[in-house]
Amino acid sequence: MQKEPNERTQPFHLFEQVVEYLVTRIGRGEWQTHEKLPSVRSLAIELKVHRLTVFRAYQELKNRGLVYVRDKAGYYVHPGAGACAPEPTAGAIVPAYSVRNRLSEIHQVPVSYQFSEALIDPNLLPNMYFSDYVKRVFDLYPKVLATYAPVQGDEELRETLCRHFAHIHRFHLSASELLITSGAQQAIDLISRIFLKPMDAVLIERPTYSSAVDIFSQAGAKLVTVDIHPHGYNMDQVEWCMRHYKPRLFYMNPTFHNPTGYTVPAEQRKRLVELAEQYRCLLVDDDTTHDIYFGKEPPPPLFTYDTEGVVLYIRGFSKYVSPGLRIACVACRPPLMKHLLTAKSLTDNGTPLLNQKIFLHYFTSARLQQHLGKLRIALQIRKDVMEEELRDSGWQWSSPGGGLSLWIRLGKGISSPALLERCLEASIAFVPGVICDPLRQMEEWARFSFSFANELQIRAGMRRVLELSRRI
Amino acid sequence: MQKEPNERTQPFHLFEQVVEYLVTRIGRGEWQTHEKLPSVRSLAIELKVHRLTVFRAYQELKNRGLVYVRDKAGYYVHPGAGACAPEPTAGAIVPAYSVRNRLSEIHQVPVSYQFSEALIDPNLLPNMYFSDYVKRVFDLYPKVLATYAPVQGDEELRETLCRHFAHIHRFHLSASELLITSGAQQAIDLISRIFLKPMDAVLIERPTYSSAVDIFSQAGAKLVTVDIHPHGYNMDQVEWCMRHYKPRLFYMNPTFHNPTGYTVPAEQRKRLVELAEQYRCLLVDDDTTHDIYFGKEPPPPLFTYDTEGVVLYIRGFSKYVSPGLRIACVACRPPLMKHLLTAKSLTDNGTPLLNQKIFLHYFTSARLQQHLGKLRIALQIRKDVMEEELRDSGWQWSSPGGGLSLWIRLGKGISSPALLERCLEASIAFVPGVICDPLRQMEEWARFSFSFANELQIRAGMRRVLELSRRI
Repeated sequence: MQKEPNERTQPFHLFEQVVEYLVTRIGRGEWQTHEKLPSVRSLAIELKVHRLTVFRAYQELKNRGLVYVRDKAGYYVHPGAGACAPEPTAGAIVPAYSVRNRLSEIHQVPVSYQFSEALIDPNLLPNMYFSDYVKRVFDLYPKVLATYAPVQGDEELRETLCRHFAHIHRFHLSASELLITSGAQQAIDLISRIFLKPMDAVLIERPTYSSAVDIFSQAGAKLVTVDIHPHGYNMDQVEWCMRHYKPRLFYMNPTFHNPTGYTVPAEQRKRLVELAEQYRCLLVDDDTTHDIYFGKEPPPPLFTYDTEGVVLYIRGFSKYVSPGLRIACVACRPPLMKHLLTAKSLTDNGTPLLNQKIFLHYFTSARLQQHLGKLRIALQIRKDVMEEELRDSGWQWSSPGGGLSLWIRLGKGISSPALLERCLEASIAFVPGVICDPLRQMEEWARFSFSFANELQIRAGMRRVLELSRRI
Repeated sequence: MQKEPNERTQPFHLFEQVVEYLVTRIGRGEWQTHEKLPSVRSLAIELKVHRLTVFRAYQELKNRGLVYVRDKAGYYVHPGAGACAPEPTAGAIVPAYSVRNRLSEIHQVPVSYQFSEALIDPNLLPNMYFSDYVKRVFDLYPKVLATYAPVQGDEELRETLCRHFAHIHRFHLSASELLITSGAQQAIDLISRIFLKPMDAVLIERPTYSSAVDIFSQAGAKLVTVDIHPHGYNMDQVEWCMRHYKPRLFYMNPTFHNPTGYTVPAEQRKRLVELAEQYRCLLVDDDTTHDIYFGKEPPPPLFTYDTEGVVLYIRGFSKYVSPGLRIACVACRPPLMKHLLTAKSLTDNGTPLLNQKIFLHYFTSARLQQHLGKLRIALQIRKDVMEEELRDSGWQWSSPGGGLSLWIRLGKGISSPALLERCLEASIAFVPGVICDPLRQMEEWARFSFSFANELQIRAGMRRVLELSRRI
């Protein structure tokens, strides 16, 4: 899988992006039929890419019959090229950006064997208790539903979380360095909106969280991939990418990584912070399953090693505390926070107060800690069951120390999209590797989540998956 | 106030925007010291503005000493120009876009006489009852906190709202044509992200909702203002702007308009939909205080007249149903909805289910209707008190038929920013017209909200405001 960095991303992926960018703009009628397109030179400058990249993009458009060449200098829009807008809409209104969320497209299919959702089975959450906390919240704050929360989030909650982090990770935060968001997804989105502009380079793991790819693509970023392995990154590759692409940020998921479950070791975390300072690259540590470990606790978040304020730490709680509340937070130093706050105020003007208060009272309860202990055991059992079913499959995976999924290399010659097609017919869902790969390859890989289906469903479902795979 | 359209916006505002755009890019080091900037011609093409606009922008940069001219053709970055980045941040990380939310900056100041928040006094909301609905929700949906809502929103809620709209406004919607958002602000933001790209033209009322200006500016849109008067728009001006600027959308607040309280009459609404179809301009009807009327009901939303799917209808409920829940919805036809759904899934993956269920049960209760009746009376009384206090001020306003604020033209020679400064010292807040004006003028105007402070506070506060105004 490991390739040379320059071979890996620069020509292939970037050139494809420029093509897509031009197709979108042509499709939106920004250039009319027979209108001259920008010169290779000027477009290379506008997009901050090499002229050869633009040249190759134009060649591709020519091959697709979207543009034609005249007096060998210029490229002109071919009649009918406009019809090739991605996702054209009816009527006059065409969206500015062609965006999609590939993962949520799979989740929209209801199935009986749910291995695609990296969510925790609602039956494993202490539903019976929640209403007590809600009742308490209404007794304590009778006007909670009549009040907006501050944009940054409820101060009582932020102070509680600061104490929590100081206690657990020994990093010191003031409430002003914490922003409450509506889930970790919103945090990624806010960061991308504030720190990225079109064609900015972004380092991203390969594979990674598919929605992050969609968010950064929507922002028009150049995605540069960094491979992640069972024992972390190839740090030479990381440094090469930082030096070569001057990325604005590195979006990472170093703890029980999604989709692989791999964890980046402490010494690499230290080194990453040094590199980030050296190359002035923002590190976005997306940490949403930190507390779901089966053996020993994972290494501390990158924020722990950050002295220069280059780390944005996203800590999600939705998955195991309460998906229905959608509470996450971002920790960063004041110069970054200032801008996140503005983005948050423009996006939704603050996360609902009720949700923050319910979360606060549940999160600080002894019950949550007991619940977490039981939850870890329950999830480990489900993981073991899934691995047991796969034992004789010949498929390969590295057993994760935490998280919600297995990242599996399927048997020789099995394409995961093809297998998914068969599985969906049999009411089984999983996530094909293609969706997790920013380069849209990794066909032979797949993510199977063991957190949502129960033991019986896992046994029956995985057996069926293996049967179906033999028929491909 | 009424000026000729071409005199009003094109040269002044657009040219200022290009300056700001270039200052930001220079500040972010996209061009180094002594590096040549794009030619007037190429930049005019890139930004889709007239060359003279770019030329004037460059002249302005020259006057500011940010660029210098060489061999009279080219403009070059002057040493030190980079230091002029708007809102520079410490360290290496500079945000891609310089954004701010001016309104929330005022709201961050705590005061005893609160006339700047167009929110409803929590004491006017039926806090006592909410907990009953919450309890009922937990009885009905024991796993509500363990479950994610669908991205589009809870189906039961969407169907209920469709019936509500069919009953009240006689327009027919299916649940698939409705998206639940976390407040109307999020709806505006999603729409701007999907339908706008940098330098797209956007029609916007003058004055308007300040956060909308901030959202569209963040998207890099060219703002083209349409004046709003006590009896609506000057339709010739609207048509001129649509023909001349080919705007992608018209963001409007035609019912108890914020900040003016004016309402656009039915015949203009019909005409607007015709114009929008003719000029292929999306109409965004932001309707958040529809139910807060003092006399007769306002005319139906623009959606009622829309046969071609050019209207996006934002209906907010936060303000009077429950600010703490943050529930609003967007109605539009499937071709537009498809893209909104993607944006919503990337932004926060769906509004929390708990909030939607609580809203649903309260919204459909008889109690809400009783509450609304009382609320209208209470707010009208507060409006009357404020108007009474202003009777002899010589200040001018047109008494609104609904909404939460008075839009007041202050006495001769009184600048609202200056008055605000004095008022904040006296613990009184209001919104100066400058903030509501996309052109950042209207110094002599101010928005005073009567919905948050009680009668006594309004009497005492407004008297103090008038005293202070006499000392300017």
